[in-house]
Amino acid sequence: MPFWNKELETLPRQKLEKLQFARLKRVLTRVYQKVPHYRKKFQDAGVNPSKLKSLEDIKCFPFTTKEDLFVDYPYGLLTVTPEKVIRLHTSSGTTGKPKAIFFSKKDINNSAELIARCLVMTGATKGDILQNSMTYGLFTGAFVMHYGAEKVGILVIPAGPGNTERQINLMKDFGTTILHITPSYALYVASVLYEKGIDPRKELKLKRAYLGAEPYSEETRKKIENMLGIDIYNCYGLTEMNGPGVGFECPYKEGLHIWEDNFLMEIINPETGAPLPDGEIGELVLTTLNREAMPLIRYRTRDLTRIISEPCKCGRTHRRISRILGRSDDMFIVKGVNIFPQQIEQVLMGIKGVAQNYQIVLESYDEMIVKVEIDRELFDGKIEKLIKLKEEIVEKIRSATMVKPKVELLEPGTLPVSEGKAKRVIDKRTI
Amino acid sequence: MPFWNKELETLPRQKLEKLQFARLKRVLTRVYQKVPHYRKKFQDAGVNPSKLKSLEDIKCFPFTTKEDLFVDYPYGLLTVTPEKVIRLHTSSGTTGKPKAIFFSKKDINNSAELIARCLVMTGATKGDILQNSMTYGLFTGAFVMHYGAEKVGILVIPAGPGNTERQINLMKDFGTTILHITPSYALYVASVLYEKGIDPRKELKLKRAYLGAEPYSEETRKKIENMLGIDIYNCYGLTEMNGPGVGFECPYKEGLHIWEDNFLMEIINPETGAPLPDGEIGELVLTTLNREAMPLIRYRTRDLTRIISEPCKCGRTHRRISRILGRSDDMFIVKGVNIFPQQIEQVLMGIKGVAQNYQIVLESYDEMIVKVEIDRELFDGKIEKLIKLKEEIVEKIRSATMVKPKVELLEPGTLPVSEGKAKRVIDKRTI
Ligand SMILES: [Zn+2]
Ligand SMILES: [Zn+2]
Repeated sequence: MPFWNKELETLPRQKLEKLQFARLKRVLTRVYQKVPHYRKKFQDAGVNPSKLKSLEDIKCFPFTTKEDLFVDYPYGLLTVTPEKVIRLHTSSGTTGKPKAIFFSKKDINNSAELIARCLVMTGATKGDILQNSMTYGLFTGAFVMHYGAEKVGILVIPAGPGNTERQINLMKDFGTTILHITPSYALYVASVLYEKGIDPRKELKLKRAYLGAEPYSEETRKKIENMLGIDIYNCYGLTEMNGPGVGFECPYKEGLHIWEDNFLMEIINPETGAPLPDGEIGELVLTTLNREAMPLIRYRTRDLTRIISEPCKCGRTHRRISRILGRSDDMFIVKGVNIFPQQIEQVLMGIKGVAQNYQIVLESYDEMIVKVEIDRELFDGKIEKLIKLKEEIVEKIRSATMVKPKVELLEPGTLPVSEGKAKRVIDKRTI
Repeated sequence: MPFWNKELETLPRQKLEKLQFARLKRVLTRVYQKVPHYRKKFQDAGVNPSKLKSLEDIKCFPFTTKEDLFVDYPYGLLTVTPEKVIRLHTSSGTTGKPKAIFFSKKDINNSAELIARCLVMTGATKGDILQNSMTYGLFTGAFVMHYGAEKVGILVIPAGPGNTERQINLMKDFGTTILHITPSYALYVASVLYEKGIDPRKELKLKRAYLGAEPYSEETRKKIENMLGIDIYNCYGLTEMNGPGVGFECPYKEGLHIWEDNFLMEIINPETGAPLPDGEIGELVLTTLNREAMPLIRYRTRDLTRIISEPCKCGRTHRRISRILGRSDDMFIVKGVNIFPQQIEQVLMGIKGVAQNYQIVLESYDEMIVKVEIDRELFDGKIEKLIKLKEEIVEKIRSATMVKPKVELLEPGTLPVSEGKAKRVIDKRTI
């Protein structure tokens, strides 16, 4: 198993946490001293970095939300003078202005280091040829991957997205071995290859792909892997945290390693902000431990996941998160309990007899109706099977969410088919 | 006057030429040993790098044309193994395939060094904010500028082209001081600013712009400078030679300095390939003196210019070329003389009373008809003025081209107005 930085990637937990603590104290002190907005927030919360005694103490510090990024915009959260930053990246914000994240030279180099770890972790090496079909520009996706690959010594083809004919010619002419691409575009490129009668296994040298920028299912991964004859790795990132490379799958593909020497992770209840133990699903909160220009403290990602704290077979000591399960904004409340549609989905997709489509209908604050399409062959007149399936669904959802749902079994095709993002929750409640 | 690398930029000619010779010998030896296609070409021409005695001896070596780039495509001209290259850039070729130029890590760094010289030469410095509105991708334009600016410590906003509303917001929000942009898009952005009632001098912090990727006239430069209240610098480059940064104007703007420690330049007669002395217009031929992965020997750029060998007031010892006057493919022959439409244009634009539009019509190999639109107020019945003007035009064209033309004076609006690139030469000759 190759490593880019074996020492740091396999640092024993105790040492890793010691490093985290030292860096956490440093970054908290830094923003307290240099960023008026952070100082005021810390003071309002009655916390002071000098009193930090353990990693756990981070829980006393205030969160940073996307709204904080617009205070003293655009340079207000910098801990260095604007002359020290060499790169701006943005992502669409909730107001008219984009979120603006600035990088110093050290930050750019560091984000490339982290991607280099990811690339080498998946088996990429000097001699590989990476066709970067993400958009180069203000979004981080293409750039951060580009710099990381360059560091490893991989040949980068800065193709950008679109012009599928040209993408295919590049793969053929230059022997592309790795794609960095969105899942939807990967599917499209694969379909064009099939239309053209080009067998990727015979005529291309593709070995693997990194998919990002859009949510996609495990089924989509399998489908693209089969169509292209390649190995696909999930990656996780957000502009506020450098872009791609925050979390990345190792070859065991049982969750995404988060580089914990650079990011302190917490999972919280998105409603209350209370910390949740490892293994429970909640909102991912990240603190940059090694960023120079624009550190972010307890940044609320709005992404739902859970921490996998069991040691990974690959030998890396950095804990993993599960595939992102959704956005915390999707959460709803029934009987006073916070529920994520993804919890329901996880349950349903694990039950034999359940088909693809389902819908959660909320008519009151006391009841959750789950409409589930099931396999057509189950509607064969033998009602016992249906009753048993319904009971199984009710019980498993109750067990996962603590709320007993009303379940309706439907024939396939009954529920509306969505174009694009499926609308899973129909909330008919007022107030 | 600030310098990025004062020692090399002001190296005395004798030392500079000594450095050129050492590097020329090295690169010729390198391609002879490592590139079968070059070895064969050298052998066919009866030349051997070991016998090189002076810079002048380069004239015995064969040219490299764009057709050579497709021999043993795509890796055939590499002097390193493909594993050593980390970047591909392409530009549209004459065949279906693009020209493919590969860069090693050293080459990427070196191209950034050369751009850093250019940027600092024009007064750019740490603290500047460069909005890079060129297309990031397979073309070199945006990337090479990006890496050079990063090296200087300039904040780069990787805007890419298009989305003019956003471009303007970026300039306003982040205080952009430098634009890297095509001339046509610069004109468009300026016009949108005017429509919106935004006064660039008051509401923006723009100081200068680098225009590239399209030919444009001195009038266009002045117009954009006036509209935006900025200083515009011409730059010259081509993908085969790293992209931008081969030639760049210094603040005196009397030609573009070519970094002669990296590029050996010659001017040749594009018909015969014979060398032309400094000052004469011909095709620019460049040899890379410091490129690792893919050196090019006597590469025919097809670009027409002349060498300005007088010392520049800025103190740089690297010779200059004039603004690119056109493509050698535009050349035509009358009475056995090679003539470039740009020679005629230069003459006409310097004569008082001549308006914007003109056309060169060729009906035989012995005569050149030049149709010239002149100012409307000259058609006032006083024929003496017209006769005098016509005589002046005939004489000045004869003096510039050695061919006496037949000149026709026309009222403005008589000649067809072209959209996009003007068709200046109407060649009606057959055979
Ligand atoms: Zn692992
Ligand atoms: Zn100069």
